[in-house]
Amino acid sequence: MAQSEVRVSGEALHEFTKEVFVRVGMSPEDAETEAAVLIWANLRGVDSHGVLRIPWYLGNVDRGIMNPKPNIKVAKETPVTLVIEADQAFGPVVTVFAMNRVMEKARQVGIGWGFICNHSHQGAMGYYSQMAAKQDMAGIVFVCSPPNMAPYGARAAGTGNNPITIAVPAKRHRVMFLDMATSVVARGKIWLAVDRGVPIPEGWALDKDGNLTTDPSQAAIFLPTSGAKGSGLAIMFECLGSVMIGNPLLEPVLLGKGTEPPPQAKKPEVKGSHPDHVARPIQNSVVIAIDIGTFTDVEAYKEHIDNLIDGIKALPKAEGFSEIFVPGEPEERTFADRSRNGIPLPEGTIRNLRDVAERFSIKLPSGL
Amino acid sequence: MAQSEVRVSGEALHEFTKEVFVRVGMSPEDAETEAAVLIWANLRGVDSHGVLRIPWYLGNVDRGIMNPKPNIKVAKETPVTLVIEADQAFGPVVTVFAMNRVMEKARQVGIGWGFICNHSHQGAMGYYSQMAAKQDMAGIVFVCSPPNMAPYGARAAGTGNNPITIAVPAKRHRVMFLDMATSVVARGKIWLAVDRGVPIPEGWALDKDGNLTTDPSQAAIFLPTSGAKGSGLAIMFECLGSVMIGNPLLEPVLLGKGTEPPPQAKKPEVKGSHPDHVARPIQNSVVIAIDIGTFTDVEAYKEHIDNLIDGIKALPKAEGFSEIFVPGEPEERTFADRSRNGIPLPEGTIRNLRDVAERFSIKLPSGL
Repeated sequence: MAQSEVRVSGEALHEFTKEVFVRVGMSPEDAETEAAVLIWANLRGVDSHGVLRIPWYLGNVDRGIMNPKPNIKVAKETPVTLVIEADQAFGPVVTVFAMNRVMEKARQVGIGWGFICNHSHQGAMGYYSQMAAKQDMAGIVFVCSPPNMAPYGARAAGTGNNPITIAVPAKRHRVMFLDMATSVVARGKIWLAVDRGVPIPEGWALDKDGNLTTDPSQAAIFLPTSGAKGSGLAIMFECLGSVMIGNPLLEPVLLGKGTEPPPQAKKPEVKGSHPDHVARPIQNSVVIAIDIGTFTDVEAYKEHIDNLIDGIKALPKAEGFSEIFVPGEPEERTFADRSRNGIPLPEGTIRNLRDVAERFSIKLPSGL
Repeated sequence: MAQSEVRVSGEALHEFTKEVFVRVGMSPEDAETEAAVLIWANLRGVDSHGVLRIPWYLGNVDRGIMNPKPNIKVAKETPVTLVIEADQAFGPVVTVFAMNRVMEKARQVGIGWGFICNHSHQGAMGYYSQMAAKQDMAGIVFVCSPPNMAPYGARAAGTGNNPITIAVPAKRHRVMFLDMATSVVARGKIWLAVDRGVPIPEGWALDKDGNLTTDPSQAAIFLPTSGAKGSGLAIMFECLGSVMIGNPLLEPVLLGKGTEPPPQAKKPEVKGSHPDHVARPIQNSVVIAIDIGTFTDVEAYKEHIDNLIDGIKALPKAEGFSEIFVPGEPEERTFADRSRNGIPLPEGTIRNLRDVAERFSIKLPSGL
């Protein structure tokens, strides 16, 4: 099936999204944050982390897994660190809070290091690392998820496909930032294939029985990028994040102590659901800010990053490449295009959003 | 050519190595540290970071690039951070110093974060992250190198193959730790193929003209692991490390402002040299310690890690795997074997060590 060419403006989609989350009980401020992070992903072409997620989020609110009215608390604090109990808050809501707090600490002592315990889905993590870059800091965030990826050598889920994002500011150029899963692809890329009705390449995922699959609707277990390397990073993130704050996410499932079976053993219950819509979306995160001015001249730093970007882009190109992109650059191009020309949404996503609009009697953005 | 089966005891190789570095001017304490890190690598089967490096190190001392008598200074400090000017010290000497200092800070405020500016080759980085794990902390180290890897989409060197190591303690199990380059393989793996006289797989490296090569003696430029992911991590490490302390390593070479041409443009000068023996080995590092006790109960933490390891190892195995290894585990097995039965060295390495022994009139360990 070809991709739909229906385009919707970012602003209209933002307003719709914000209204949806207000209707499920979020404060207008939190709904604004949630909408901003989702639409930012869509504008950058990372549709896997955009409004495609809304039906899943709503299902999770209905089932009491995602909390639109969380009681967010700082449980522990040192001059440099912070442990935040998120009360199953939406990832964007608590992570924006966390990044602001660790930036305050970084301003004082050079580094701010926060743990977030027990939040729900993070959305597009690059949003948070970029917050730091816009304040003349480097930002790092990594996230720990329940098992959804096969450790290297296994044919069953044993680790999350725990992603990491790193952002730094430039001067002439936009913020440079990396945002990568430790799986071959992020989960949403597989959902997107479901919505588009296309197969996935072999090597992305296993089905629930541990066999390689190219059917995105059967994809239940991710495969790690670079084998032992992606697998190892993901496992170590769990040790640095979840276990460090006494909230392990892998161990309870691995040792069968969990209150629920591993995600792939459950059947979808939500209308319009994707293969792992039912995965328990509780996560922990580590949120780090590094204050550039504490260590070097900020303007010189940004000029160095500009020069680094220019230097990399000017290298001779490998066969099959017409341009060399620095981290985050392809998405910046898409951002520029979609900010002007609107966001194209595939049929499957539009269908799901229509159901959402009906449920709350909200008008869909024009064109949908 | 089959691998040599000559084995030498770790202790004997340690004494020989220590003596070599004393002869080039290191203090006995520093030579002890240098030997400990090199032999630790050999014992773990990471021969690419073991005594194979000695001839290259000596050549670098002769050319004034590696400093056996460095003036190591703390240039900047906050309660959580530290910037160390390494004066081209050997990596092991200054990094052991740095890790001890950041662990002191972590004990006070939860996190210690150090930058090391201007050191020479790091050796086996896992040694330093394990230091933290042995003190009930998590340890993270990443290293920034001059260009030796093609950024994704390029056919020339534009980033270092900047590696990262992360270690955490367990209780019943040994320290669990990751140690990975952002290239498909670490540099030493290619040198080892030279010493063994075997080809390397396609996809590991390019020759100096940017063409894929399977001849390890022609391998001049590494390829990033996972394409954009390995490439992106490496570039961001340079931004978080080198650029943050005002000592960029990529920019001067990329923009042709360097005092020397990119590594692959120079011809080897050192007897018994490897393809990139002449690469300028100056690096910067970031050294981080996280004090577990600041955030959670240390004994509970270690039990969680034990359970995580047990849970992962008990997963159903993928086809072709007889066992699932957690990060660092295969090397721990080798360590146990080689500690008992000695370290096997390939012919090429033995030949080079014989030259070293002759130069300093030191007796080679028996068997070599």
